[in-house]
Amino acid sequence: MSVYEKIMSMAKRRGFLYPSFEIYGGEAGFYDYGPLGTLLKNNIENKWRHFYIIRERFFEISTPVITPYEVLKSSGHVDEFMDEIATCEKCNLSFKVEELKNDKCPVCGGDVKKEKLNLMFETHIGVKKRKQAFLRPETAQGIFVDFYLLYEFFRRKIPFGVVQIGKGFRNEVSPRQGIIRLREFSMAEAEIFFEPDEKEHPNFDEIKNDKIKLITENDEEIEITAEEAVKKRIVGNEALAYYMALTKKFLKEVGIDEGKIRFRQHKKNELAHYANECWDAEIYSERFGWIECVGIADRSAYDLEAHIKSSGVDMRAFKKFDESKKVKRRIIKPKMDKIGKKFKEKAGKILKEMKEFEVNDEIDKIFVEVDREKIEIGREYFDIEEMEVVEKGEKFIPHVIEPSYGIDRIFYFILEHNYKEIEKEGEKYSILSLPANISPIKAGVFPLVSKDGLPEIARKIEEDLRKNGIMSFYDESGSIGRRYARMDEIGTPFCITVDYQTKKDNTVTIRFRDTTEQIRVEIDEIAEWIKERIN
Amino acid sequence: MSVYEKIMSMAKRRGFLYPSFEIYGGEAGFYDYGPLGTLLKNNIENKWRHFYIIRERFFEISTPVITPYEVLKSSGHVDEFMDEIATCEKCNLSFKVEELKNDKCPVCGGDVKKEKLNLMFETHIGVKKRKQAFLRPETAQGIFVDFYLLYEFFRRKIPFGVVQIGKGFRNEVSPRQGIIRLREFSMAEAEIFFEPDEKEHPNFDEIKNDKIKLITENDEEIEITAEEAVKKRIVGNEALAYYMALTKKFLKEVGIDEGKIRFRQHKKNELAHYANECWDAEIYSERFGWIECVGIADRSAYDLEAHIKSSGVDMRAFKKFDESKKVKRRIIKPKMDKIGKKFKEKAGKILKEMKEFEVNDEIDKIFVEVDREKIEIGREYFDIEEMEVVEKGEKFIPHVIEPSYGIDRIFYFILEHNYKEIEKEGEKYSILSLPANISPIKAGVFPLVSKDGLPEIARKIEEDLRKNGIMSFYDESGSIGRRYARMDEIGTPFCITVDYQTKKDNTVTIRFRDTTEQIRVEIDEIAEWIKERIN
Repeated sequence: MSVYEKIMSMAKRRGFLYPSFEIYGGEAGFYDYGPLGTLLKNNIENKWRHFYIIRERFFEISTPVITPYEVLKSSGHVDEFMDEIATCEKCNLSFKVEELKNDKCPVCGGDVKKEKLNLMFETHIGVKKRKQAFLRPETAQGIFVDFYLLYEFFRRKIPFGVVQIGKGFRNEVSPRQGIIRLREFSMAEAEIFFEPDEKEHPNFDEIKNDKIKLITENDEEIEITAEEAVKKRIVGNEALAYYMALTKKFLKEVGIDEGKIRFRQHKKNELAHYANECWDAEIYSERFGWIECVGIADRSAYDLEAHIKSSGVDMRAFKKFDESKKVKRRIIKPKMDKIGKKFKEKAGKILKEMKEFEVNDEIDKIFVEVDREKIEIGREYFDIEEMEVVEKGEKFIPHVIEPSYGIDRIFYFILEHNYKEIEKEGEKYSILSLPANISPIKAGVFPLVSKDGLPEIARKIEEDLRKNGIMSFYDESGSIGRRYARMDEIGTPFCITVDYQTKKDNTVTIRFRDTTEQIRVEIDEIAEWIKERIN
Repeated sequence: MSVYEKIMSMAKRRGFLYPSFEIYGGEAGFYDYGPLGTLLKNNIENKWRHFYIIRERFFEISTPVITPYEVLKSSGHVDEFMDEIATCEKCNLSFKVEELKNDKCPVCGGDVKKEKLNLMFETHIGVKKRKQAFLRPETAQGIFVDFYLLYEFFRRKIPFGVVQIGKGFRNEVSPRQGIIRLREFSMAEAEIFFEPDEKEHPNFDEIKNDKIKLITENDEEIEITAEEAVKKRIVGNEALAYYMALTKKFLKEVGIDEGKIRFRQHKKNELAHYANECWDAEIYSERFGWIECVGIADRSAYDLEAHIKSSGVDMRAFKKFDESKKVKRRIIKPKMDKIGKKFKEKAGKILKEMKEFEVNDEIDKIFVEVDREKIEIGREYFDIEEMEVVEKGEKFIPHVIEPSYGIDRIFYFILEHNYKEIEKEGEKYSILSLPANISPIKAGVFPLVSKDGLPEIARKIEEDLRKNGIMSFYDESGSIGRRYARMDEIGTPFCITVDYQTKKDNTVTIRFRDTTEQIRVEIDEIAEWIKERIN
């Protein structure tokens, strides 16, 4: 059995991961998080929130997964979110072209036909009037289309960051890598809006000496501090380097082996349509090799520009100059009388919209929006004048730096990196050395024997832990060794045993998963003792 | 302005709720949770977890929103999840038939054509071979299809409960009620599996004296204790009554006005296809009247039975008798030789599956599953014998009690019930009296003035609160009164001000939102002081 098979077998048996819809034969590209898996996944996501919301001071939003056609047409996904697919003309199986060798079917060797296919799940809004829509391929677009509202929320101060944790969808052609390649996946994305030329990070000093292992676009491997990576222009700006270092810190804290993390730069031809620089945090897996788990991309102004263009809504930010400037601008001058005559009661609002309307070239009409209606104003209604104006600042389209985390892959690699098999009294024994603060169950609580009042004391302790918000598990079935073993296998860091001494002096034993060392702690102090070790 | 308009205007301005995809003209039936809205929603969901996971000892799972056709065909949703739709032949608008008066179009008075339409969002899995699928109409089915795995997880002990918090979808015909009728919504559902005749709840005593207001299926309104409701057979069983009382407790704790909660029983003709008894927790809204927010249903064995039948997987649970029983059963007796000859190397596994295979009537074939393959065994391969066997227990299909919460509606009603408008110095002033533990921001932290070192102290305090996991917000812009007002409007329970006295004695003022009372607290004690009041 490969390590993957061992882990997936344990994961199913112990309730971490279930193959979805198994009673109906299963569905490739889908996995369920079971009872322990969901606890673990929630802990990973909450740790992520701690990094990006509490620490970085970003805010989270939550937008629909169903996304109208226009949004994803504008963002480029309708035209660019494609895979090149080869379908065998003999056995009819489909593959990604990149999986082929020699342009032949990898299963039967037959000839293949290639085509480009869009990978978004399609659906329709409305059951009578049906409107084309997709399931979002990334959570990011929900943030971009809200930019003008978020900019107000942050009191028009840039930089600011907004995150989203939720489902993303990608209709993979024939996913064959289990939890590594899902059609429905969990992602955590942060979109941080910067001024185009000011991608410095205020806390860069905190991480500047952190070392990161890089594979550059020329396939050079180097280990270097974040600061040096920026200085030597290997990484394009401070913000990118900062989020690379932060990503490494996060991955370490949730239990990824530090030596198995590297950052690989996308080559020009593999960059997504929206990115101008991207570094993947790759995690090494015994089974899969180096796998991309986090993408840290400089999306520049790509998305906001696209949405401004398609929607016509001005989502630019404003930057005050240090000193006001005199500049020449071509401004339209409305012909009041003509507008009044033609547009009557709307004239006032139209004139307001036309105020200081700047045009670049000679044009024959402009559009203004009044009460959500787009109104055409022909050239006969205005003159164009060149004038000198004093400007206090200028509008600009913010740039976006995006760390985008694939939660499912990280989840699996946490299991792989922490899964340990040893022998105990001639039997296989497995331990999951999860960091205490992401373990699904923090404490097992056992009575040494199921009599003499020990179960009652143990139950009361477990109850109290839960009241303190500590996820714990009461167990009185089987030998104490078996109970320890069950908890070790699922990564429970502490086991509390109530024994006969407890009745004498109100203490219990606490056993440590990784060392099997035991200490005695007073009952009243257990909750605090655990809290100190899991926060 | 109606209270709804006032709240939605505040909600948009302050970042609780945004209309989705607004820059593209918006999409009816979709809402975004903004920065403060997401904090509030997460707090509501975590409180729900506290009730159902920590307190009730249920476990959460997380299954895909994309659901294959077979699952929802079996569950009855393909055939039953319908609305009767009327489409006007004159103006072409569509309505739910229940919204019509006199069978005419409510807009133009034209004649209408009626039809039944399924309300599930449809999609396809795979881009080459496309397989029909839907976006789940409820999270419950993901739990039911995993029942056989969950039953093992809970060590085959019934009752147990499993919950899911996530998105549900309903392709409403023409949603016109904003946040109240969404096409993509957040739900929190608990499925609790009981023995069919033992729907008692072990903690019933804790809530038996809680009063609940009921509207029975005969439209009688009564206020009664949970215990009496069961005794008088108004509510079908203890479990239903328990979860009704628990629901009321939950709603109160998240800030719903106790006097505006009632439970209305579904009449026979409005029961969902899977339910045999259902009570809706309805919440009263100034704008919408009584609105269903939680459904508490007895789904009996409906769903498991349906999935067992369609999938052929035995998902029955086992119950030990108090004493073993002798019973007569019709058992098949395999003809070993014939089976050996026909099925060769598979014969061993087939015989194992045929062991103690019980049949009710005379039949001409059976099916067994070996290595995930369904194999037909014709009548020539076995005899049928009636024999007396000693049975230690019996298999049964568990019944399900389900509290199903609509999070978005509860979210809105929390805003409505806690929104208060007063006059302050001649100006409108609004306060959101949220319970402290669900408020998005727990503490505003202000320097009295932006000089003399006060900002540095305040920033440090805010930093420390965040390190303690307390969501706080630093603000130094505008008068102190304006800063209080901004925090009152979004429901922040405590405001901390650093003033000149702080520099002398290391104390700050803490101001209470609801009373505007102020006290002085030492800087080192602020975090603990707040924690005590928000947990």
